[in-house]
Amino acid sequence: MRQLCKGNVAVIKGAILAGCRGYYGYPITPASEIAEAAALYFPQVGGTFIQAESETAAINMVYGASAAGVRAMTGSSGPGLSLMQEGISYLAGAELPCVIVDVMRGGPGLGNIAPEQSDYFAMVKGGGHGNYRNLVLAPASVQEMADFTILAFELADRYRNPAVVLTDGFVGQMMEPLELQYPDNNREISLPEKLWAVKGTPETRANLISSIYLEPDALEAHQRRMEAKYIRAQQAEQRCEMCYTDDADVLLVGYGIVSRVLLSTVKALRREGVKAGLFRPITLWPYPSKALAEAAAKVQKVLVVELSNGQMVEEVRLALNGKVPVEFYGRVGGNVPSVGELQEQVLSRMAVAV
Amino acid sequence: MRQLCKGNVAVIKGAILAGCRGYYGYPITPASEIAEAAALYFPQVGGTFIQAESETAAINMVYGASAAGVRAMTGSSGPGLSLMQEGISYLAGAELPCVIVDVMRGGPGLGNIAPEQSDYFAMVKGGGHGNYRNLVLAPASVQEMADFTILAFELADRYRNPAVVLTDGFVGQMMEPLELQYPDNNREISLPEKLWAVKGTPETRANLISSIYLEPDALEAHQRRMEAKYIRAQQAEQRCEMCYTDDADVLLVGYGIVSRVLLSTVKALRREGVKAGLFRPITLWPYPSKALAEAAAKVQKVLVVELSNGQMVEEVRLALNGKVPVEFYGRVGGNVPSVGELQEQVLSRMAVAV
Amino acid sequence: MRQLCKGNVAVIKGAILAGCRGYYGYPITPASEIAEAAALYFPQVGGTFIQAESETAAINMVYGASAAGVRAMTGSSGPGLSLMQEGISYLAGAELPCVIVDVMRGGPGLGNIAPEQSDYFAMVKGGGHGNYRNLVLAPASVQEMADFTILAFELADRYRNPAVVLTDGFVGQMMEPLELQYPDNNREISLPEKLWAVKGTPETRANLISSIYLEPDALEAHQRRMEAKYIRAQQAEQRCEMCYTDDADVLLVGYGIVSRVLLSTVKALRREGVKAGLFRPITLWPYPSKALAEAAAKVQKVLVVELSNGQMVEEVRLALNGKVPVEFYGRVGGNVPSVGELQEQVLSRMAVAV
Amino acid sequence: MRQLCKGNVAVIKGAILAGCRGYYGYPITPASEIAEAAALYFPQVGGTFIQAESETAAINMVYGASAAGVRAMTGSSGPGLSLMQEGISYLAGAELPCVIVDVMRGGPGLGNIAPEQSDYFAMVKGGGHGNYRNLVLAPASVQEMADFTILAFELADRYRNPAVVLTDGFVGQMMEPLELQYPDNNREISLPEKLWAVKGTPETRANLISSIYLEPDALEAHQRRMEAKYIRAQQAEQRCEMCYTDDADVLLVGYGIVSRVLLSTVKALRREGVKAGLFRPITLWPYPSKALAEAAAKVQKVLVVELSNGQMVEEVRLALNGKVPVEFYGRVGGNVPSVGELQEQVLSRMAVAV
Repeated sequence: MRQLCKGNVAVIKGAILAGCRGYYGYPITPASEIAEAAALYFPQVGGTFIQAESETAAINMVYGASAAGVRAMTGSSGPGLSLMQEGISYLAGAELPCVIVDVMRGGPGLGNIAPEQSDYFAMVKGGGHGNYRNLVLAPASVQEMADFTILAFELADRYRNPAVVLTDGFVGQMMEPLELQYPDNNREISLPEKLWAVKGTPETRANLISSIYLEPDALEAHQRRMEAKYIRAQQAEQRCEMCYTDDADVLLVGYGIVSRVLLSTVKALRREGVKAGLFRPITLWPYPSKALAEAAAKVQKVLVVELSNGQMVEEVRLALNGKVPVEFYGRVGGNVPSVGELQEQVLSRMAVAV
Repeated sequence: MRQLCKGNVAVIKGAILAGCRGYYGYPITPASEIAEAAALYFPQVGGTFIQAESETAAINMVYGASAAGVRAMTGSSGPGLSLMQEGISYLAGAELPCVIVDVMRGGPGLGNIAPEQSDYFAMVKGGGHGNYRNLVLAPASVQEMADFTILAFELADRYRNPAVVLTDGFVGQMMEPLELQYPDNNREISLPEKLWAVKGTPETRANLISSIYLEPDALEAHQRRMEAKYIRAQQAEQRCEMCYTDDADVLLVGYGIVSRVLLSTVKALRREGVKAGLFRPITLWPYPSKALAEAAAKVQKVLVVELSNGQMVEEVRLALNGKVPVEFYGRVGGNVPSVGELQEQVLSRMAVAV
Repeated sequence: MRQLCKGNVAVIKGAILAGCRGYYGYPITPASEIAEAAALYFPQVGGTFIQAESETAAINMVYGASAAGVRAMTGSSGPGLSLMQEGISYLAGAELPCVIVDVMRGGPGLGNIAPEQSDYFAMVKGGGHGNYRNLVLAPASVQEMADFTILAFELADRYRNPAVVLTDGFVGQMMEPLELQYPDNNREISLPEKLWAVKGTPETRANLISSIYLEPDALEAHQRRMEAKYIRAQQAEQRCEMCYTDDADVLLVGYGIVSRVLLSTVKALRREGVKAGLFRPITLWPYPSKALAEAAAKVQKVLVVELSNGQMVEEVRLALNGKVPVEFYGRVGGNVPSVGELQEQVLSRMAVAV
Repeated sequence: MRQLCKGNVAVIKGAILAGCRGYYGYPITPASEIAEAAALYFPQVGGTFIQAESETAAINMVYGASAAGVRAMTGSSGPGLSLMQEGISYLAGAELPCVIVDVMRGGPGLGNIAPEQSDYFAMVKGGGHGNYRNLVLAPASVQEMADFTILAFELADRYRNPAVVLTDGFVGQMMEPLELQYPDNNREISLPEKLWAVKGTPETRANLISSIYLEPDALEAHQRRMEAKYIRAQQAEQRCEMCYTDDADVLLVGYGIVSRVLLSTVKALRREGVKAGLFRPITLWPYPSKALAEAAAKVQKVLVVELSNGQMVEEVRLALNGKVPVEFYGRVGGNVPSVGELQEQVLSRMAVAV
């Protein structure tokens, strides 16, 4: 079924197809349509939508629903996500799957409601306490808002860990065609059995969901187990998209909405004879470092572009480890670099090299 | 005045000498003695201690006190700090100085109350939303708990930004001699004038403390100003300690309590003929990358040791940018590597090189 | 369908038959089985059960559901009800129907979890601010727990006002046969149309649910309208039960569980030749003053018995207005007077008269 | 020292003279100047002012301060008081003295910010759960706002019970001369020793402040002790003011601001030859029933006037117990009856009698 759909709404359509039946959240611009769509559609499929008292409440409701074996989610923007950091750490520590959507806006503090990508550190490096990682996906289109939400539920269950759909006000607010792959609700999805969940049944009575391990050795063992699954995820789940990288002299790196501007920039540069390529991370964690290192192996320069003051650029530097010069260009506050602006950035930086 | 003092208590003694007169917090092991000491000493110097309803409340009280021009602080451990992430982002966005003490415990989630260093990402990379940085100091002794708290207030005011004292349950709980430099309360400290504060006076009536900038250009300009001060801080405030680095073949890197174990390890290794050196970052942000790069210039290997699964190690890699192999060894859950254990780690890793 | 059922569970069975589809609450002994049964049964009939963050949250969720036209309810015990007083006043002020169950326990403060009747003032006289009344029903059996809950929904809708089922830990916890009158779920109930509700439909877009009336004349007019409906309720809804009152010399008055002990006492007294009668108020507001005045017209003495230190006794005095001596006997803390104890009370007080 | 002062401010001046050193509250019109004055003056006398997160928080801070032996208070208006009902019940149950000021506004729900007297039931009959009473004083002038606040602290300590200053937006907002009896701060007040308090000293270590009594007999005994002190208060603390009652044919009864309109009405009626008198309760609990019964002994009619739909009138009826006809006239929403309006009410009702 092909339809014109807003990015934030596509998240919920994807979630429903993924079998998610619990949405707990609190509205905030520019993420509010997610809650709105959840309030509309979840009851229609027998699901639960709760507008919680606060974001702190919402993430703890997600904890509860997930502990009961339900595919559950929440959505918010920067300030709301900050309020959820304790809860996210608890979900990760208790190895509970869930999906969290962050439609990034301008920050820090109150900032504004225009798009930014400045929650990268908070969501990818871990804004909550303790050793844990979020699985993070970065959609760049309305279609991916749905598809990556579905994927996020799969990954969350596969690794029993929170998965984040990290997007921004552009992708959240824009309308594009959406093709839902599933002919009718929920038929295609076979939900994983969750033997560990506390379902209120005699069989699950002995199950315990907790993140407390009082003895140092017990907590260390727990963290080692978590680490092992994170290593598995790093091996199995790195995802990216590459365009024109085979013969590239300069590699442009950006995620989400930025990757679309970068693709236009690459094409414009090539029209001018500059062999530019695009590397677009789809998973921000695990970061597609291996593919990036390969794509950058022969380039003269890497330019990372973000709607931030430079956050993901650190992952690029870590991945390339000094082998290629990595430069950064960022815009913030809701401003987005134009193709012309980026062309100029590339040309001026390539000047010496070219 | 020389005295035997607990690390957590030293924090408050330092804070009072620094002219801090507002403490807002909620107790949590292993940070509770900070609140306890604040409750005892702050009223004695005409200051305010409030046990807030929650950590979320506490950090917002800090916001209010700081906006009024008062040197203000809070203290907590992992879960509490996660709950404060929204408030910290607001403080940074409104350019409000404050001091936040994180006595790290085992995580994620509830974890345990034993020491860890796994809030590094949350406190150093920025756990809250938006582009901002915390100034972060890492004490390794009771003396430094006091001294760095004083320094944190200085830095916070100098950059109008939150400053974090990032420590752990070991340093917080241990007792050591403390020498307070100031002969009597508050005489030495000349508090900075804060013309921007909202003091309830006619002169400050027009002052406005806020982090909202609705227009993209306005928010971008605000963030550029913030970025400029962060660059100044990176140039002026990198602090570290180096021991036996001049002729080192292997460089051990660790902060806080770990640096003390590492120093013993360095000495033990040298007794066995291995030229080991210690690099101890004092500021975790800005990270002492320049000094580290110099110290590591001639070593064969760098081994980073943390009470985490590897967080600060990324800064080391970024600083060295592939020039030297960087390895990692970590313990978690409250376990701390022994000198013997670390010697073995170094020796086995140096095997090929030696 | 006849079944053995616990009083608290009967509340929910009644609620579901009454078409209630929203339960919002927080568990507290001795009311917890209400929430438990709601959690079990509401989803089975397409309804919503939410365990809120607090009682304050719960009553405001009831406000929201009721505003949307849904039959909604909550349940708690003393401390929880106190936390709901603001919300109840808002519901009354906005003329929103709802049902609130108070399974009274020992108070004040934390008290204990044994039965009492000491929330009478708080629930009947109005514990919240402003001029409003709750409609209050006092069941004395498991059957009435179901029946009066159904009736409470009818009255709440009829008067667009909160209705309270005021019961206690005895009636809530005891098991008795329950006969549900309705052959299958919800078929018998024809829910009232609520043209005033905000249903998210185009037709109801102009509806406004609010209790704010800034102008004194407007607020006075609003309160006069409310007062008029309260007068209608006082005329139409007084309910009571009388036993052996025709020839009674002494009238025993008590509600809820006490009325059952009183009936046994009446019978025991009559066996000893004392013409005792029982007056049992079913509605505590509107209080069945007219029937009481008639029943007491020829008696020599009225003895009010409560599991409190004397609260409802004031209504009896107001109803009789000095025409008959009114005395009081109460037990509290979970203690209940025995038949022998009450016989003795009556006999000693009748001594002069007899 | 004679000064022109606002009623709400006089409350705080009285509180400080009474030795109160802890104010915990949340602002609400028309009570906000109380918090404002507390914020200004409490720090000047070494006291504590905290603007809490909510009224629920505020009353629990009062609990804490009172438990520590400090004279503590809060202030609010209708909605805020409703949120405090749980806390008030806990204070009463734990026998903790405190002063609570309710500057009544229009209700129920949001209502408006104009004066009313419709929290009478909520504050006098007990809006919280369980058997307890508040001591309630009703000032009618700015001078009494100060004096009765002082008296409230005395009574609260004498009976170890919450004492309420029940006033309204008129008395709270109006400015009148205030004569503070005490030459300088706090010299006159000798604060009672509180051997029961938990002061953080070795001597008070064994003290326990609690309202929990798990065993029925223990809770009953506790309530009997409380009841005994309430009976003592009823015998010792009934306060009222009477004007022209000696030869009155009609007795006007009203409290607070209403009593001032009633006095003018009495004088106007007497000028017209109607022997009217004024009975003004100063304590609303314990209600001055004895004096009222005496004052009403020879009148033909009693007219109760309230800024409510009839709440205190019940106490009048209970006190007179049918001996004299009791009628009621009320205005609400912020409207206040004029002298002419009340004259007419009296004359029309007296018509038959005269």
